[in-house]
Amino acid sequence: MCQLLGMNANTPTDVCFSFTGLATRADEHKDGFGIAFFEDRGLRLFVDPHSASASPVAELVKNYPIRSGNVIAHIRKATQGRVALENTHPFVRELWGRYWVFAHNGDLKAFEPRLHGAFRPVGNTDSERAFCWLMQELAKAHAGVPTITELSATLRELMPMLHAHGTFNMLLSNGQALWAHASTKLQWLQRRHPFCHATLADDDVTVDFANVTTPSDRVVVVATEPLTTGESWAAMVPGELRVFVDGAPG
Amino acid sequence: MCQLLGMNANTPTDVCFSFTGLATRADEHKDGFGIAFFEDRGLRLFVDPHSASASPVAELVKNYPIRSGNVIAHIRKATQGRVALENTHPFVRELWGRYWVFAHNGDLKAFEPRLHGAFRPVGNTDSERAFCWLMQELAKAHAGVPTITELSATLRELMPMLHAHGTFNMLLSNGQALWAHASTKLQWLQRRHPFCHATLADDDVTVDFANVTTPSDRVVVVATEPLTTGESWAAMVPGELRVFVDGAPG
Repeated sequence: MCQLLGMNANTPTDVCFSFTGLATRADEHKDGFGIAFFEDRGLRLFVDPHSASASPVAELVKNYPIRSGNVIAHIRKATQGRVALENTHPFVRELWGRYWVFAHNGDLKAFEPRLHGAFRPVGNTDSERAFCWLMQELAKAHAGVPTITELSATLRELMPMLHAHGTFNMLLSNGQALWAHASTKLQWLQRRHPFCHATLADDDVTVDFANVTTPSDRVVVVATEPLTTGESWAAMVPGELRVFVDGAPG
Repeated sequence: MCQLLGMNANTPTDVCFSFTGLATRADEHKDGFGIAFFEDRGLRLFVDPHSASASPVAELVKNYPIRSGNVIAHIRKATQGRVALENTHPFVRELWGRYWVFAHNGDLKAFEPRLHGAFRPVGNTDSERAFCWLMQELAKAHAGVPTITELSATLRELMPMLHAHGTFNMLLSNGQALWAHASTKLQWLQRRHPFCHATLADDDVTVDFANVTTPSDRVVVVATEPLTTGESWAAMVPGELRVFVDGAPG
């Protein structure tokens, strides 16, 4: 199964991802991975259609602490669309002068929306089609640049239309907020200062937060499955949409 | 001055960039660099607002041979817009289900076009503004998906409007073709088989082509200044637009 991982923090937070566990389970997530880091309005996107265990790009991400307020990562097990760079999550588009990043875990059946707007898929996954449709509908729904609250309201109306076509666990960010929609599996957790050397770890992915220095610092982590034991991860319920801003539920 | 570098090949070609020379001249190109590699319709974009001489991303690009048919690289010396990730070239947008990549060398004065379409700048450079305007005008000029010849004709009409505002050396690609426009400085060269171990080198950037194996292989390189001596680089004239397809002038 694909793995989603998101982070939303109130201070740009150094975050490093490790993929050590994947080396032993490469067959399960062999179809690529990607990570998008927002730095203010700017974006870095690292994608590789090869297994994270073998990828030099994964090696870079492991060793390069990037200060980011919003992160979306995806490890792919292909269900629709061939294994290719253009089908590797996360996907990016620009809307209202901001980059939007999207990653999806699940499988949509018979989802062939009419795309008449400015967003077209480059690859051939159900996921990128859903993303283009979402961007089109967001653009249509707002004449000017909407607030986070207005965007959340629109997304809340749109999610059921995707959910109706199958499994739609999703992470979406524009660098200001992180939206998470659960269809089957998505868990979240808030961490607060001090967590300088905190490590979230499971067999697959390790996330290290560093340089977190002030008592007001806080960060939300969203993941397909809890990344730690002994902490109270909250499971999202099917159909639930959550928005996280500045490291807290919005 | 900023440096542009483009590649267009008829076979996906392994290409590695080295930035060794930059270590000694870091003050000249301290404001970031970026490289975009097309792999078929897919795209990898590596950007870093830090000097290429110090960047782990540059280290990755140096060691990771990526098979690409179209490459655009940019090393930045900021003239407009602060040094930030969102102002780092190349810029990317999607149009007609393809990614478009753009990098600019120069400085446009008083270029404030009306952007009423689906493309808005995320940062605040003259370059990204010019790119968004180009995308908007391309989209407006064609009802359906145009051919490369039609795109070239439209670009040939649009270039003077940018050129009129200042220096506009530019590289643009949609993964099918590489367009180059010269305002002051741009040189190009075609190389053919055999060039397995050919190296294009200057003080700043080294490009290694490898795994080029068949007699029909050919590649065009476009650069701000000739990267080699002893080869016949062709200087483009001010106002000239060229399109390269499959490693040859189109």
